Amino acid sequence: MTTVAFIGLGIMGGPMAANLVKAGFEVVGHNRSPDPVRRLEAAGGRGAASVAEAVADADVVVTMLPDSPDVEAVALGDDGVYAGARSGTLHVDMSTIDPEVARRLAAAGRERGLRVVDAPVSGGEPGAREGTLSVMVGGDAADVADAWPVLEAVGGTVVHVGPAGAGQTVKAANQLIVGGTLELVAEALIFLEASGVDTGAAVEVLAGGLAGSTVLQRKAPAMLARDFTPGFRVELHHKDMGIVTAAAREAGVVIPLGAVVAQLLASLQAQGDGGLDHGALLKLVERLSGR
Amino acid sequence: MTTVAFIGLGIMGGPMAANLVKAGFEVVGHNRSPDPVRRLEAAGGRGAASVAEAVADADVVVTMLPDSPDVEAVALGDDGVYAGARSGTLHVDMSTIDPEVARRLAAAGRERGLRVVDAPVSGGEPGAREGTLSVMVGGDAADVADAWPVLEAVGGTVVHVGPAGAGQTVKAANQLIVGGTLELVAEALIFLEASGVDTGAAVEVLAGGLAGSTVLQRKAPAMLARDFTPGFRVELHHKDMGIVTAAAREAGVVIPLGAVVAQLLASLQAQGDGGLDHGALLKLVERLSGR
Amino acid sequence: MTTVAFIGLGIMGGPMAANLVKAGFEVVGHNRSPDPVRRLEAAGGRGAASVAEAVADADVVVTMLPDSPDVEAVALGDDGVYAGARSGTLHVDMSTIDPEVARRLAAAGRERGLRVVDAPVSGGEPGAREGTLSVMVGGDAADVADAWPVLEAVGGTVVHVGPAGAGQTVKAANQLIVGGTLELVAEALIFLEASGVDTGAAVEVLAGGLAGSTVLQRKAPAMLARDFTPGFRVELHHKDMGIVTAAAREAGVVIPLGAVVAQLLASLQAQGDGGLDHGALLKLVERLSGR
Amino acid sequence: MTTVAFIGLGIMGGPMAANLVKAGFEVVGHNRSPDPVRRLEAAGGRGAASVAEAVADADVVVTMLPDSPDVEAVALGDDGVYAGARSGTLHVDMSTIDPEVARRLAAAGRERGLRVVDAPVSGGEPGAREGTLSVMVGGDAADVADAWPVLEAVGGTVVHVGPAGAGQTVKAANQLIVGGTLELVAEALIFLEASGVDTGAAVEVLAGGLAGSTVLQRKAPAMLARDFTPGFRVELHHKDMGIVTAAAREAGVVIPLGAVVAQLLASLQAQGDGGLDHGALLKLVERLSGR
Repeated sequence: MTTVAFIGLGIMGGPMAANLVKAGFEVVGHNRSPDPVRRLEAAGGRGAASVAEAVADADVVVTMLPDSPDVEAVALGDDGVYAGARSGTLHVDMSTIDPEVARRLAAAGRERGLRVVDAPVSGGEPGAREGTLSVMVGGDAADVADAWPVLEAVGGTVVHVGPAGAGQTVKAANQLIVGGTLELVAEALIFLEASGVDTGAAVEVLAGGLAGSTVLQRKAPAMLARDFTPGFRVELHHKDMGIVTAAAREAGVVIPLGAVVAQLLASLQAQGDGGLDHGALLKLVERLSGR
Repeated sequence: MTTVAFIGLGIMGGPMAANLVKAGFEVVGHNRSPDPVRRLEAAGGRGAASVAEAVADADVVVTMLPDSPDVEAVALGDDGVYAGARSGTLHVDMSTIDPEVARRLAAAGRERGLRVVDAPVSGGEPGAREGTLSVMVGGDAADVADAWPVLEAVGGTVVHVGPAGAGQTVKAANQLIVGGTLELVAEALIFLEASGVDTGAAVEVLAGGLAGSTVLQRKAPAMLARDFTPGFRVELHHKDMGIVTAAAREAGVVIPLGAVVAQLLASLQAQGDGGLDHGALLKLVERLSGR
Repeated sequence: MTTVAFIGLGIMGGPMAANLVKAGFEVVGHNRSPDPVRRLEAAGGRGAASVAEAVADADVVVTMLPDSPDVEAVALGDDGVYAGARSGTLHVDMSTIDPEVARRLAAAGRERGLRVVDAPVSGGEPGAREGTLSVMVGGDAADVADAWPVLEAVGGTVVHVGPAGAGQTVKAANQLIVGGTLELVAEALIFLEASGVDTGAAVEVLAGGLAGSTVLQRKAPAMLARDFTPGFRVELHHKDMGIVTAAAREAGVVIPLGAVVAQLLASLQAQGDGGLDHGALLKLVERLSGR
Repeated sequence: MTTVAFIGLGIMGGPMAANLVKAGFEVVGHNRSPDPVRRLEAAGGRGAASVAEAVADADVVVTMLPDSPDVEAVALGDDGVYAGARSGTLHVDMSTIDPEVARRLAAAGRERGLRVVDAPVSGGEPGAREGTLSVMVGGDAADVADAWPVLEAVGGTVVHVGPAGAGQTVKAANQLIVGGTLELVAEALIFLEASGVDTGAAVEVLAGGLAGSTVLQRKAPAMLARDFTPGFRVELHHKDMGIVTAAAREAGVVIPLGAVVAQLLASLQAQGDGGLDHGALLKLVERLSGR
């Protein structure tokens, strides 16, 4: 039976770890605060008091943490994953971090005899609970194959997109497109409202043509109703746009729209709307337009 | 039997007029150059040597012309539609023009005893041939109802979105979203290529989540293959972004992304790529990134 | 003695006409509202009840009006300048309008036997009062030479920059640079404030190097003090950015920064700050940054 | 007699160190490659084979290095400045680096008993040779006072702008304004050329009004002549815009123009123009406009 150490049992990590239990893995979970560990134990997993304890006997170590420095600390720290895991252990980082950091981790893991796969997800808390996340996987083919059962237990769509870091690159591209599309839809909706158009009918006809998108279908109704209950929070998307702009810069790719979207999400965050759903870009366009 | 005068038998107007013939309307067509008139006659319509001749006995006048000044000239000119049409005639302008011009035409028509509906379309030449265009209709409810049989003969989806000008407003919103989404996808694809990602796999996983869009599904493969056969030409989208920015300005709505997209399409046009499909935004991002 | 008809005696035109009186010209002034005409009479000029009356005996007709349509109406209207002025009369339009409209007016004037020069100004109300305006002059060399004494009577710096329309083009370039520099300085100042820097000292050192500008010298202190008394109003700069973006588009020139600046001024205008000095871009950056 | 260790004797550091010798300081210089050390010796300084050797007996340590990681390595490395300098030594970092890194260095230095001042410069190689650099100084007042004689020996204008990091913040603001102004001038000049204006006359009149700037005066003539001999290289300004966007993000300040300027400089860099003067933004606008 495969033993999975799961580090980071938050809003996303908690239900993902629970799904691994359901799928028959032996799951040893660790979290900085203790409550999520209790919840994992209630769900049939085992709690660990430290990263070192969690990874000691693991075949696979999954990390699901907020940002690049968190993952680096947990992986590379003195009592961290790479110090404590057995040789050959598979580290599957499912956090959303900078692709460059993911590549560095892969190299550092290899030096310690570990195998590292980056596998960030999209689909939010509902996807985490229902096990329907989209998972973008970067790493060596053999390592990705070994990680597959774990990934399938938490994801609905799992796609291997390239070598180490490629998963994070695709996640960054995802956040670029999603943020930009939300802003385009926000600009369009405020323009339609300001022009006295029947927005419901307009969204219907827009959704049916080349302007159609998952954002328009799933998010436009809530945006029109000014319901900004997350969903995916502005503060996280703001963090992710930092990754997008840094990674594009690193790759020498010019992203004029992406750069403007990053500023707009930074503005929402600065204005105290970091806790709202990222569809709140509509509020920003509304304010900019004095409405 | 309803007689429809059809002014403007170009790439879009030609097949639309033919579809009206097929649907049982008596169609009298006029075009500045004579060949398209011959083709309409071959398809079962009747040719007219002038706008005045075409509209003299019409119940409905459809115009399908390149830009605002063309429609104004044909509608308001000395020998134009409003001078020659019978009182009560329904003018259905299916061109893509400035919403403000559409509202002015509606007022001018009303003064002359005509009824005016704006009904721009999306779906391109294939949609025009197959009668599957999306039609965004603005105007008084009764006038729109009277225009309905004509609109359904050329369109697959016909939606009444508001008063006079509303059709054009929704079309402008459509072009804003489409242009912006194409640019976002272009930025994402070049970023993915530059980072050594398997772009086919990446597009698959992106399309399945919140980043999914009709643009990603229908256009990304051709963009990745550098196939920029139109489709919808850059020069037309450039023209349309002029309408978008002017209409948003008129409505007092701030569209930072839309404004940048307008500049990028203007750049493609200025660089001699006006005849390519608007997916050529990928080429622009590629050049900007020195690739 | 040269007779100058002066149409448009507003905040700018009033003091300019008075300066022409002082310089020894016979000035016949007209304005839509009567009070400014009274003031011109008190300053030694003559009032006229209509454009036609004002231009009937004029050697030179100066127009100083808010926007392109105003100038077109006064120049081309049934009782307008070109209908009423004697053959050979020199029309000097000092309004800020679209270069394309200026070129059309020059052509229309020529057809009527008039000579047309475009001569927009910068320097604001103080410059108008003190006769120190910068004047950017477009037109045929001979016509510009004939206009020179009039231009020197109202301006401190008068420069002939090219053929008809060129004056307006340079004015548009001026507004592009001024608007953009104000926004750059606004972004820099808020960034400095947010970072706990001594802004006074910072402005001193910035002004002394390559970052130095007239905006930084003349406007930064008032901006830091949140004193937005105009000066030059946001609503006028917003109007002018409409000219800038249209003229650049017409010329096939891509102006990414200009396009964003136009959106930011549109936002200030939409938020009800149209009456403030354009240095209020600082307020916008402040709001965007949640400060 | 004050002993100054000078680490980094490149294009900027070399002449700065020579000016310190001229001003009567005892200068011990170190550089990764040996030739610049030979030049310093020829100018009357002393060479050191390592950082440790250079700083061992120094009262003041000046660093003049390319980027944040270089300064961190030299300051914090095992054989670095903070390991080897005597307690109480003053570290004056004159490199252009991230303000956040400058603040971290100040804290790290304090822990080791050192005093740290950040003092980045503007004015380029000519300013370095002639000792006329502008110096923006951040740090505690007493430390800045102690550093003053050194700073005055290399700079023409020296301004204390706030606490640790403030010098770097002001330098970042400087680069934001300079980059943006160059781009605005580039957009304006190409617009003027494309419109058939006499650009020389136009620059004259623009420079005399609110559009006037040091960039317009010093750089526009070379830009119009397509002379992009550096001056200040695109690759350095590209690096600096990375600092600007990161620092503004860190400070929660939204800089829409700055973000677009960063993309445009990134584009020049990606297109292989990194070695040209930053006035080459004109080339980019020219290409974008198909000219």
